[in-house]
Amino acid sequence: MNIRVYIPDEKIEGFYIDALKEYEKRLARYCKIELIRFKDNKQLDNTVPDKSYRILLSPSGKRVTSEEVAKYISALGLSGVSDIAIIIGNITLACNDRLALSSLDMALGLQTTALYEQIYRAYRIINNHAYHK
Amino acid sequence: MNIRVYIPDEKIEGFYIDALKEYEKRLARYCKIELIRFKDNKQLDNTVPDKSYRILLSPSGKRVTSEEVAKYISALGLSGVSDIAIIIGNITLACNDRLALSSLDMALGLQTTALYEQIYRAYRIINNHAYHK
Repeated sequence: MNIRVYIPDEKIEGFYIDALKEYEKRLARYCKIELIRFKDNKQLDNTVPDKSYRILLSPSGKRVTSEEVAKYISALGLSGVSDIAIIIGNITLACNDRLALSSLDMALGLQTTALYEQIYRAYRIINNHAYHK
Repeated sequence: MNIRVYIPDEKIEGFYIDALKEYEKRLARYCKIELIRFKDNKQLDNTVPDKSYRILLSPSGKRVTSEEVAKYISALGLSGVSDIAIIIGNITLACNDRLALSSLDMALGLQTTALYEQIYRAYRIINNHAYHK
């Protein structure tokens, strides 16, 4: 599975960058994940490949548990989806689904870290691997 | 306000430790926040001061928005509470309230970071300060 995470081109604290690097490393055995910055709606719309399944993250989106995220990713793979675009940021964009990480507003770096950790957790669940670290 | 955050005595990744240190520094102008590790339920129960208002964080707790967290902290202060104990961890303990950061399971370091960031965000809201960083 190719997962592209699109985030606004804003400053992220160094410790969140470190966290993202670490989760990217851990995820390497399960999927290809890439972080892409966007400047505005238009640029984003032009950047996301047409074939991508688009998920928008927003506090008003659907609330899910970690087990549901695992089933969700697994079901997308089984249905033939090989590209997922996950978009963070307060934007309007045609998308396939809207999910919520939390009902709370969170700093961009924290949202992105929480997303990466959740994808990593999902793959651990899908593959029946214990979640050590 | 004195805020004590109680977490299980488990390993936390370095980048989350860095994040906690940074939010603690930013929070210094608003409150006194302290991170305390606990080994088990009994030790925790003996450690939390009786006068503390106890909040348990759990994915099954009440979902709140960032604005509600700000009102919550503000209302506790106005009602005369000067000590808040926030407990993270899958434990059973008599408490005053149960809140949820997310419906998702999250790594301990991530939960703690999300909590600190949310407390910082709450004080920015309470004091009408812009949330730069």
